[in-house]
Formats: sequence, C-alpha cells, structure tokens
Amino acid sequence: MNDMGGMDLNGRSRRAALLHLGLAASAVALTAGAARATGGANGANDAGDDLMRVGMVVFDGFQLLDVFGPLEMFGALRDRLRIVILAQNTGLVASSAGPAVAVDRAFADAPDLDVLLVPGGMGTRREVGNAALIEAVKALALKTPHVASICTGAAILARTGVLDGARATTNKRAFAWATAQGPKVDWVERARWVEDGKYFTSSGISAGMDMSLALIAKLFGGDTATRVANGAEYRWNRDPDEDPFAALNGLAR
Amino acid sequence: MNDMGGMDLNGRSRRAALLHLGLAASAVALTAGAARATGGANGANDAGDDLMRVGMVVFDGFQLLDVFGPLEMFGALRDRLRIVILAQNTGLVASSAGPAVAVDRAFADAPDLDVLLVPGGMGTRREVGNAALIEAVKALALKTPHVASICTGAAILARTGVLDGARATTNKRAFAWATAQGPKVDWVERARWVEDGKYFTSSGISAGMDMSLALIAKLFGGDTATRVANGAEYRWNRDPDEDPFAALNGLAR
Repeated sequence: MNDMGGMDLNGRSRRAALLHLGLAASAVALTAGAARATGGANGANDAGDDLMRVGMVVFDGFQLLDVFGPLEMFGALRDRLRIVILAQNTGLVASSAGPAVAVDRAFADAPDLDVLLVPGGMGTRREVGNAALIEAVKALALKTPHVASICTGAAILARTGVLDGARATTNKRAFAWATAQGPKVDWVERARWVEDGKYFTSSGISAGMDMSLALIAKLFGGDTATRVANGAEYRWNRDPDEDPFAALNGLAR
Repeated sequence: MNDMGGMDLNGRSRRAALLHLGLAASAVALTAGAARATGGANGANDAGDDLMRVGMVVFDGFQLLDVFGPLEMFGALRDRLRIVILAQNTGLVASSAGPAVAVDRAFADAPDLDVLLVPGGMGTRREVGNAALIEAVKALALKTPHVASICTGAAILARTGVLDGARATTNKRAFAWATAQGPKVDWVERARWVEDGKYFTSSGISAGMDMSLALIAKLFGGDTATRVANGAEYRWNRDPDEDPFAALNGLAR
C-alpha cells in the first residue's frame, strides 16, 4: 500500500475520460505522460516490471462484492501484482447496485495475465448470450494459468466450455439457472469453493473472498494468505466444504 | 436487483467523462437526458422518488472493501434506497489497490442523505489534513440522520469533531494513528463495531459489512438484514463485541 494514489489519478481519470469520448490522439499523449509520471496502476499494466497481472472481468450489472471482495484480497499484495479491470469496451461499467468502475483495458487489448477472475451478478443473465464476451473470456481462460469465478460468474465460464468435465460450484440461490449454462460440468451443490486443476469456482458473492485467499495461498503461500486475511480483519473460512448456504437453499449433495 | 444497468450506463459514463473535462454545458444536457431516459442510478439521485439515499464518501487511496462491502449490503435493497458516490470533485477516484470508481456528486452538490458512510484506506493519512474534505464531511454528518465509518474512516469522522464525547472504534492495526486524530473520542479497543446514538463506527476493512448489516437491521428490521446477509451468502457476525483482531494487534481493553 502507498499513499500516492493522487499522483496516478490525474493521468488515469483524464485518460479514461478522453478515451471514452474517443479523443484518441489526445488520449495517447496523456497515456504516455501518465505512465512516465507515475508507474502507477495504469502504467504498471504495461510491460516493464515483473509483477503478476490479475485481470477482473466486468460487465453491466456485475455484483459489487464479487468484484471488490477478491480485489481487496489481491490488492493487499501490490508489491507483487497489479490489478487490471477488463471489459468488452473501455469507459465505465455500472454494477447492479449502481456504482460504476473504470475499465483499464478492453478484452482485445488485455495484457498477458497470471490470474483471470470472472464475477457474477444479474448482468450474467444477459452476458451468457453475448457471443463476443463469451469468446473473449474463453480465449483469456485458455491462456491464463489460474482462472477463477465468483458466484454466477461460473455460468459465464461454463458457457465458454472450459469447465466441461471439471468439478465446479456457483451461487446457491441461482444454482438451477447457473448450472443449466454448463450441462457437461460436474456441479457441486455443497461447497464454499471448488478447485479443479487451474480452475477455482466459488459459491455466492461473499464466497469469492474465501476462494481468493485460497488462491493467494496457492500462489504465494499460506502465511501470506493469513497475513492478507488478518490485515483485512477478515475471518477467513478456510474449509472449501463448509457451506451452510447449500442447505438454506434446498441443496445438499 | 435488475438487469438494466446498460441503459443507465451510456448516460452515466458520458456524463462522468464530460464533467471531468469540464464541458459543463454539454454535461448538463446529458445529465437531464440520462435522468429522463433511465430513472436509473444517477437519475434517481435527483428528486422524484421516496427512496432512501445512502451516500458513500470516496477519496484517492480509499480501501476497496471499506466502500464496496457496505455497498454490497445496502445495494441489495435497491427497491428501498439509492447509492450516491460522493467526493470532493466529480470524475474518477482511484482506490489504494488501483481500481477507480465514478463519482456521482461533488460534496457541494450532495442530495439530502439518510445514511452517510465514510471509508478508510491509506488515503486517510492525507485527507485528515484536507480542510475542505473535513469541513464537507462535517457538514454532511451533522445533517444526516445515520452516519457510519469503516476502518480508518473513523479518523476522518474524528477530525471533524462530531465524535467528541462519543464511543467509537476503528482499524486495529492502525489504532494508534487513527485514535490520535480524535483525542476527545472515547475509543473502544475491542469491538467489531460501536453504535453510539446516530454514529456507527466499525473496525478494520471487513468489519464494515457486519456493521452495515446492523445498520440495515436498525433501519429496515432484523429479518431484512438476515435476508440480505443470506442473499450474499455472508456469515454475518452479529455480535459487536466479538473481535479477535484486537488481541491479534496487541489491544485488549
């Protein structure tokens, strides 16, 4: 963590504003300036350091905590990684609750990632039918070494086909809809999260934080994950099988 | 929740972009258009409905989960309330982890609020010395019926003086720094959150979710709070005195 967000922000917000308006020439100049001046969030998304890249997909109607719970945990490791917000287009993307996040990169312009995260939310009901997004997520998932979904983000991953034959879980209240998006997936009803090879899938909303800490433990060690959880004063549920919300929603397998 | 974020987004993002560039005349036209066309997040921040207004303060270097954990919980009640992101200026504001949120309203243009939320993060180290922000938060806190801080957001609230004589808590790792910002506050070392009159203050980062559910219970009833927690598959710590992170950081009172 550092206290220098302000230096980065000027370049970042001006660039986002200009890009959105399509003032490409001015934006390119600002981008170069911002990267030189700060080496901050956006500058660091480009080449030039050895940090991991954690990419978070967003779309209109994403669930706030699906995105920012995991990014809180990964974001505590800014000495080791950089976060990249990815979407079909640059600009702003609004959550189902209203607040909007700035997109760092369009899918077509995504850097090589170490971790790809796919959130859920009511917007997934539309996005499972968005062929461009499904193809882009599939391409990113196939080439990224660690891939994780939160909540109904598993429905999007399932639609890409990359989970076929794998064990996976998803939101317990939307279980019937989400699992119908991937009939060849081995869906697990009672699980806080499921790890199968390079794929992690978590249950509803809050479960993304527990899963992210498990993924951080895999990548950086258990001591680091514990330090991140304690720093966030978060009571980490470390047991992937502890899931009271399955029975609460009539699921028990 | 609904699936219509996309309708709102076009007006929202164009307005944010234009406002940031200071193209006020065009922005005003777009704002009116967006409000008419959508009645969505931004339109609803204006008069014309009976929904509660929940205002979240942001500043460069805010902590992601301090902001979006509580907004996840309040955001599940969009049939009853609207979220308004507030900052010193409109445009984008970057978190300490990198991702940036769009500001709905500058402090000077804030609507009447029912709930004011003040997050923490490394940016607080700078903002406690920002007289304009402290004065704006003080004015909002004095006229808002329910006021809450998350993590080191309590340091900002304390600096305004509104917590003088009240019981309050804050982040346990940054306890010495944060409490020094309010020598007349009755700081509580061991607490997940503290309620004193209209003021709620929570411990570090994740504690904001537990406190928000308690505030939702106060505003809308315990059944609603339980429904929100279960919908988020969140294991709500309902006990304000259950705080393992005090002892972990050498605090025990």
